[in-house]
Amino acid sequence: MKIGILGYGNLGRGIECAIRQNEDMELAAVFTRRNPEQVNILTEGVQVYSVNDIKEMQGKIDVLILCGGSATDLPEQTPEYAKYFNVIDSFDTHAKIPEHFEKVDMAARESGHTALISCGWDPGMFSLNRLYANAVLPDGNDYTFWGKGVSQGHSDAIRRVEGVKDGKQYTIPIEDALEAVRSGSNPELTTRQKHLRECFVVAEEGADLKKIEETIKNMPNYFADYETVVHFISQEELEAEHSGIPHGGFVFRTGVTGWNKEHNNVIEYSLKLDSNPEFTSSVIIAYARAINRLHKEGQNGCKTVFDIAPAYLSPKSGEELRKHLL
Amino acid sequence: MKIGILGYGNLGRGIECAIRQNEDMELAAVFTRRNPEQVNILTEGVQVYSVNDIKEMQGKIDVLILCGGSATDLPEQTPEYAKYFNVIDSFDTHAKIPEHFEKVDMAARESGHTALISCGWDPGMFSLNRLYANAVLPDGNDYTFWGKGVSQGHSDAIRRVEGVKDGKQYTIPIEDALEAVRSGSNPELTTRQKHLRECFVVAEEGADLKKIEETIKNMPNYFADYETVVHFISQEELEAEHSGIPHGGFVFRTGVTGWNKEHNNVIEYSLKLDSNPEFTSSVIIAYARAINRLHKEGQNGCKTVFDIAPAYLSPKSGEELRKHLL
Repeated sequence: MKIGILGYGNLGRGIECAIRQNEDMELAAVFTRRNPEQVNILTEGVQVYSVNDIKEMQGKIDVLILCGGSATDLPEQTPEYAKYFNVIDSFDTHAKIPEHFEKVDMAARESGHTALISCGWDPGMFSLNRLYANAVLPDGNDYTFWGKGVSQGHSDAIRRVEGVKDGKQYTIPIEDALEAVRSGSNPELTTRQKHLRECFVVAEEGADLKKIEETIKNMPNYFADYETVVHFISQEELEAEHSGIPHGGFVFRTGVTGWNKEHNNVIEYSLKLDSNPEFTSSVIIAYARAINRLHKEGQNGCKTVFDIAPAYLSPKSGEELRKHLL
Repeated sequence: MKIGILGYGNLGRGIECAIRQNEDMELAAVFTRRNPEQVNILTEGVQVYSVNDIKEMQGKIDVLILCGGSATDLPEQTPEYAKYFNVIDSFDTHAKIPEHFEKVDMAARESGHTALISCGWDPGMFSLNRLYANAVLPDGNDYTFWGKGVSQGHSDAIRRVEGVKDGKQYTIPIEDALEAVRSGSNPELTTRQKHLRECFVVAEEGADLKKIEETIKNMPNYFADYETVVHFISQEELEAEHSGIPHGGFVFRTGVTGWNKEHNNVIEYSLKLDSNPEFTSSVIIAYARAINRLHKEGQNGCKTVFDIAPAYLSPKSGEELRKHLL
């Protein structure tokens, strides 16, 4: 299978690494909006092209992975490139998924391609777990927690505060809340009870630290509704201790069974990831295998992880899967 | 959807309870090898038939759930009844799944029915999690733990010991082993390091307790390879404290990502079930919806949970699922 990558940031590099771990995959090309000569990739012998030349690669790529952002890149890119390629994106603006799906579906159907949107871990593996658990326990409650991990959006928000030179924010699920859910007691949890926000801030010289801390803690939408902890550290410490992009989280469904609903059951799925973009990429690459197969079967249009039978993700045959994993 | 139940034990009763929790489901009939007049079911207005009359119900049942045992019932029943009905079983003899699959597949293809074997939580939900996690993290290790829960086979083994009147065995995953796996250290674990076996035994009057304990602890296959704890209790205490059928367990995959495999990632799925047969039944009933749909689409033959797209399990439309669960 020949994979193309559009956009060579953290996610694009993650896709490149994931391809290396799958013997049936090969990186065919990387496309960039930057000057291709200034983009250095890890894989030897693979060329970097300008995105302007992408249509020339039609027929030479089985699946194109779109590695742009959900805010402005993907709403344009995915429907556009579904005209020329089988495509996968990790569109994660939950509220706009239905609209995005319609556009991509129309483009893919018209051109006879197969597309997958919102692939990764949330949306993605977490969504799958919500769906399976809801189908199995119709009478119950859902809980999703994120972290411990770096929130890019919240880190950006910190860095926009006056007097802040650099910063990183961790979203941390609150242990008492996790335990309450695990116990099956079906707690009602407020925003503040579910997650803690921990900030590591490098202040500019002479900045008013008290004011920075107050500004962060009272920032609407981002921090005001949460217990927020602010630590001031040096640039050196930030780089030494907080340069990773870990993430993860928990999806629970608790539900009752029995003639009189007398039995409790708890389903828990969790991820603990050293690298958020690499894990997202690993999920996408498994689904690239599925999309390539579905396309060969003539199943065109836009899909989500809900529409794809698990066996399509694996390089193993049905027989091997039944023998070793069932 | 009209559901039939063959075999009215713990699993059959669980199926009956699960049907009640799903508005699109209806119990059509219960079939038994016993005298139907002596089988009292919970659902009003539904008839219990002798299994000898089952063929007369052809066309009146969308999916027949086979609730017999894997040792002798299902190897015969599933291929046989796939001739007349869409069927689901919970066949759990892992080593014999390929052979069972072939037989059921042939019968279902010949008769134009749709069958699902090995549905429940292990095999079933645990298998799904092993497959997804293996596809996403090709470079890693799998760990499955069972419990805390009642093992029927081990409880039966206790009850066969001379001087034992009654007994119950709990399989308990060892916390240190769980923590070692969770840490991403990829431990190699022996049987003894993974699970503890705790036995609650009611001895006959005047029995030699020391001898019973020794016999249990040294029983090959069942207990000899494990740390085993034996408690002697009264029949009253056994009935008051140990009459439930809880179970559960953990499926982990730990794996590396990154250009130099420098990042660890841990995927964990766990179940904590007050009622093992009711949860198994809840999984089966969600898959009954899928099997009915696949049959209507003309997809005949034998399936496993690997072959079925998650969306088929839910009563919600693709549009609703994308909007609310993705």
